[in-house]
Amino acid sequence: MKDVAVIGVGMTQFGELWGKSIKDIFVEAALKAIENANVDHIDSMYVGSMSSGLFVGQEHLGAVMADYLGVSPIPATRVESACASGGIAFRQAYLEVASGASEIVLAGGVEKMTDGADVTEALATAADQEYEVYQGVTFPGLYAMIANAHMYQYKTTREQIAAVAVKNHKNGVNNPNAQFRGEISIDKVLNSTLVADPLRLLDCSPVSDGGAAVILCSMDIAKKFTKNPVRIKASAQASDTIALHSRKSFTTLNSVTAAAQKAYKIAGISPKDVNFAEVHDCFTIAEIVVSEDLGFFEKGCGGSAAEEGLTSLESGKIPINTSGGLKSKGHPVGATGVAQVIECYEQLTGQAGKRQVKNAKIGLTQNMGGSGASCVINILEAL
Amino acid sequence: MKDVAVIGVGMTQFGELWGKSIKDIFVEAALKAIENANVDHIDSMYVGSMSSGLFVGQEHLGAVMADYLGVSPIPATRVESACASGGIAFRQAYLEVASGASEIVLAGGVEKMTDGADVTEALATAADQEYEVYQGVTFPGLYAMIANAHMYQYKTTREQIAAVAVKNHKNGVNNPNAQFRGEISIDKVLNSTLVADPLRLLDCSPVSDGGAAVILCSMDIAKKFTKNPVRIKASAQASDTIALHSRKSFTTLNSVTAAAQKAYKIAGISPKDVNFAEVHDCFTIAEIVVSEDLGFFEKGCGGSAAEEGLTSLESGKIPINTSGGLKSKGHPVGATGVAQVIECYEQLTGQAGKRQVKNAKIGLTQNMGGSGASCVINILEAL
Repeated sequence: MKDVAVIGVGMTQFGELWGKSIKDIFVEAALKAIENANVDHIDSMYVGSMSSGLFVGQEHLGAVMADYLGVSPIPATRVESACASGGIAFRQAYLEVASGASEIVLAGGVEKMTDGADVTEALATAADQEYEVYQGVTFPGLYAMIANAHMYQYKTTREQIAAVAVKNHKNGVNNPNAQFRGEISIDKVLNSTLVADPLRLLDCSPVSDGGAAVILCSMDIAKKFTKNPVRIKASAQASDTIALHSRKSFTTLNSVTAAAQKAYKIAGISPKDVNFAEVHDCFTIAEIVVSEDLGFFEKGCGGSAAEEGLTSLESGKIPINTSGGLKSKGHPVGATGVAQVIECYEQLTGQAGKRQVKNAKIGLTQNMGGSGASCVINILEAL
Repeated sequence: MKDVAVIGVGMTQFGELWGKSIKDIFVEAALKAIENANVDHIDSMYVGSMSSGLFVGQEHLGAVMADYLGVSPIPATRVESACASGGIAFRQAYLEVASGASEIVLAGGVEKMTDGADVTEALATAADQEYEVYQGVTFPGLYAMIANAHMYQYKTTREQIAAVAVKNHKNGVNNPNAQFRGEISIDKVLNSTLVADPLRLLDCSPVSDGGAAVILCSMDIAKKFTKNPVRIKASAQASDTIALHSRKSFTTLNSVTAAAQKAYKIAGISPKDVNFAEVHDCFTIAEIVVSEDLGFFEKGCGGSAAEEGLTSLESGKIPINTSGGLKSKGHPVGATGVAQVIECYEQLTGQAGKRQVKNAKIGLTQNMGGSGASCVINILEAL
């Protein structure tokens, strides 16, 4: 396999983008990435989107976006893996460049969630339609079961879970593209509206519009475009049962542990070599479980780690979600995995401003779909 | 890039499968392919599906199918490119094996279209939602415009167009998996219900349920599993404007010509070297246009070629759609591109029974989305 680099990135503001269509959003992000990467063409492109059919009545998104971006007749492929669609678009672009089939490939993700669809119903199509959704459970409900199990098994407290939201909002203040740029307190989380016991409104990532794109190329030509290419050290993907009830444990996500083991092996590193990570905090409890399953903390210690600030930017043993995470930055589901790579790229090239992790050499992104039925992990390295 | 082979195939009956869910259908095809290929595991899988969200309320189809197939935690990715979803799932699997990331990969496609959704509305999401669908045009309408333009520009006759349906039904009689296994006549086509002038009911492929899967592996291990691996000589993909009205011509499909040029170049062959082809006859006129754009006939001569039997199995200069094509075999949209590869595999390994093309050495599949905004072409070769 050929060595592959990220050489440029671009994203839109995340939030309620009433004045922009799904096409406007994707094209804005893609043009920014193309300009940022200094490339004069792309050979191929991928579009990650979870459910443009249900959200805005438009499938065939690869061709649609290639057309509106003005790059036809290049190959343009949409990939979908629920909320991991963006991370998997990135991985497919990586595989295409690594195979030698293409030299310069765009990986983008987009979602337009605020245009009138029943968002909860559309998102629920990421769960098992027959055995979960028809019984009335939604994603807040599924993650609430995970939270309850974690609190029972490991004595994780409500305050510890809330600490994740507080930290991510603090980080998001310094991210100009974040949807919510205001700090919140533990009390504010604990007193926000109950959504699915024990999860409250401020434990949940928001409904968002947004797009993100990155440009990948083979490492042997990367220096033609930028002084600071970022190397893709590993990209690994795994799956798990679609339904939560089919799993032996609610407190560990097998797709995360499987993808992590593979990614660490390919990269030849261990969790302690990772300087920072962007993880999939669709709900606060998810960040806690994932920070354990990635090997950053012992199983059951993710809650206390968050509370003690071990994942904060300042004191951080391992800063997590310096971008603000899904919680504060926003979660346009198809774009999220690509936006994680963008934060990684900005950190590794020293462009993260007030969010900058000191001496950042190796970053990890973890993006998952549903209640963890799919997961993709990328490890990136500064050269 | 590594050399890649197809080593086994499996598909369900195409038709109205009232007793089977989308999961049942995919798993049946996948298990048949795994058994046929004699593999004891797969490293990764792709699922092509156009709109499982709109058809049956289930996205996240990669993970769902890996779970029900019992192969988690392997990577499982859904790709979508409208009616070209299957062909692109095959191409992504090819790229993954060619890259060296995986050795044995399953490429499958599935659609469950009869379970209650508004099929015409769901299929219309493959067109431009803003500028085509909102104005009331559907796919029969778009292809009717192509047919009218072709008839005007090249004096193509209604009878010539009908000859495509007659031939494909004749071929389908000998395909046990075909949805319609009865011969029809030119008169029957011309007297069937008018759908969108000049296209009539028997010019249109049907609404179908079905699944198809193939197993790919690197050529260097293929002989461990089968005496007759089929080599993937080329896989090329291209895009075009999403809306028909944006194109300079209605009578040629730029995505087809672009993908064909690329595929022939990679394979090092010209159209005359192709012994047979499976092409995307979603409507009869599509087969005529595509048979020209693939270089089998001069531009404007596709209609007379069909009428004169040049694409028939018997006399054939170039037998087209020996499987029965989408018209007779059925068109479960996400499965179609994979089913084309299956026909190719069966022809190249001498397993096509009464549909067998004599001395078949090189076969081509052409699968497209929408009114040709995406197209993927694969060229396969008997060893």
